[in-house]
Amino acid sequence: MYDVVIVGGGPAGLTAGIFAAKRKLNALVLEAGEPGGQPLYAFWIENYTGFNKIEGKELAKRFVEHAKEAGVQLKKEEVHSIEKKGSNFAVKTHDAEYEAKSIVIASGAKCRNLGVCGEHEYLGKGISFSASCDAQNFKGKRVAVIGGGDSALKAAIFCTQFASEVYLVHRRNEFRAEEALQADLKKSSVKLMLNMEPKEFKGDASLRSIILEDANTKQTTELQVEGVFVYVGNTPASSLAAKLGVQTDEKCFIKVDRMQRTNVPGVFAAGDITGGILQVVAACGEGAVAAVKAYEYVKSLEKV
Amino acid sequence: MYDVVIVGGGPAGLTAGIFAAKRKLNALVLEAGEPGGQPLYAFWIENYTGFNKIEGKELAKRFVEHAKEAGVQLKKEEVHSIEKKGSNFAVKTHDAEYEAKSIVIASGAKCRNLGVCGEHEYLGKGISFSASCDAQNFKGKRVAVIGGGDSALKAAIFCTQFASEVYLVHRRNEFRAEEALQADLKKSSVKLMLNMEPKEFKGDASLRSIILEDANTKQTTELQVEGVFVYVGNTPASSLAAKLGVQTDEKCFIKVDRMQRTNVPGVFAAGDITGGILQVVAACGEGAVAAVKAYEYVKSLEKV
Repeated sequence: MYDVVIVGGGPAGLTAGIFAAKRKLNALVLEAGEPGGQPLYAFWIENYTGFNKIEGKELAKRFVEHAKEAGVQLKKEEVHSIEKKGSNFAVKTHDAEYEAKSIVIASGAKCRNLGVCGEHEYLGKGISFSASCDAQNFKGKRVAVIGGGDSALKAAIFCTQFASEVYLVHRRNEFRAEEALQADLKKSSVKLMLNMEPKEFKGDASLRSIILEDANTKQTTELQVEGVFVYVGNTPASSLAAKLGVQTDEKCFIKVDRMQRTNVPGVFAAGDITGGILQVVAACGEGAVAAVKAYEYVKSLEKV
Repeated sequence: MYDVVIVGGGPAGLTAGIFAAKRKLNALVLEAGEPGGQPLYAFWIENYTGFNKIEGKELAKRFVEHAKEAGVQLKKEEVHSIEKKGSNFAVKTHDAEYEAKSIVIASGAKCRNLGVCGEHEYLGKGISFSASCDAQNFKGKRVAVIGGGDSALKAAIFCTQFASEVYLVHRRNEFRAEEALQADLKKSSVKLMLNMEPKEFKGDASLRSIILEDANTKQTTELQVEGVFVYVGNTPASSLAAKLGVQTDEKCFIKVDRMQRTNVPGVFAAGDITGGILQVVAACGEGAVAAVKAYEYVKSLEKV
């Protein structure tokens, strides 16, 4: 029996683990992939307070090491379901079932990728999922943002502060982004590449160009860019939550209050899965709050 | 004219500054004392994700350096008042008046001290304001917690996990803490020292004892302890907020929503002044959110 099972081993989950361990809770962090979370996919992080500039991979490594030193149990298992089991919760993975008094869901909002040749190869070598982290590395360079929603438009406009040229590549000829953002986009220097679908990323040690295909004519163009920001949506992994009766918002992010409580007593959520600004330091802060509140919840059970 | 004036140079204020600077806002951080905030008064911090164990002073220094490298303007001035000035805000200090489009209040919740001999001398050398940060440094040692409210009782109970003996020193013979906590206290191994007022802290290079005076008999006792946690209350510096019409709760913490918005448009708050778990990483997270939302607010003004 665990006091708390934490689903996800990114910044929020690892921080929740550290805070739980410091409070002597019997805590388990389950992470399906490599622990460390989104920082693994950023080249440089310059806004995690205390590190002026640190490689994303290095920061992720430090987070994992810190959690291990704090005594956090970390298992590489994917959670398939979480169910109520009496007053506790049953957490099922492929290999095992764990019982827990409380749950912290910190499984993140994975950025959707394009599934295009070269994408994996140049991830962290020109391709990024975060303009707010990485745009500054492209001062005076040419970059493209791929996508047509709010985040894509925001990212493109944001990049004009740094890059010499910014292209917005979208597979349709209209945007689903909010009107106000579209107006901002028109006023900006962003160049539109509409009806264009990315087909391949090319380069040497780092990214040099994208091959784009015109949706109507099927003709291809090579766009010379050194940076690409992929904004084709997030997939909050909150299907687990839905099964538990945890409320989500219209974008599938889990609804929480300021103390990271969901509508289900004993279930907390933290980090990108709750929406918000999707930044590392904010995710860590939420993980800390979720763990402290899970601790108080577990202690309150002992009194009954 | 500043885009944003940030009141307070602790973890929340410095992080807000970093996020504002990264978004190219013209941002000013005003801090009356030494920048760095509460970490300056913790010996060790073991729960700031990424640092397994770091001296509080060292972490504070890293935060300040990061902010400076990011281009944050930091001035040593105490804010006396913030007032609405048309659609902007006028921030007055002893020396100057600054105009800003938005405000982030991150001035912290200062722990009240006792004002007793030796208190300043042994701060960080046995005396701490945070059991959750420092209790672990007193494994197998004798500690005292001073205070009679919720936080004091929680801290004392928490310390029993680490210390060999825990004394709870309170100047009255009853507690103002909630009933449930008082019940927990009774079940715990905490030893009560009631009707006792601390008069002096003594030691060599580090703390060794407290001189206590009995409130009735005025007799003094020397209590041998190596650690003391002072929990005689927080003073959120939110008088500034009240003048602006910013709502506070019954403990004088500023009320904010999940996006750190107060009830006054353009005024955000972050860190200990908003209550919550009063932990460094949580304050940083809130500072980041406040700055991103201040950025969006300032950009929305430009559209009008």
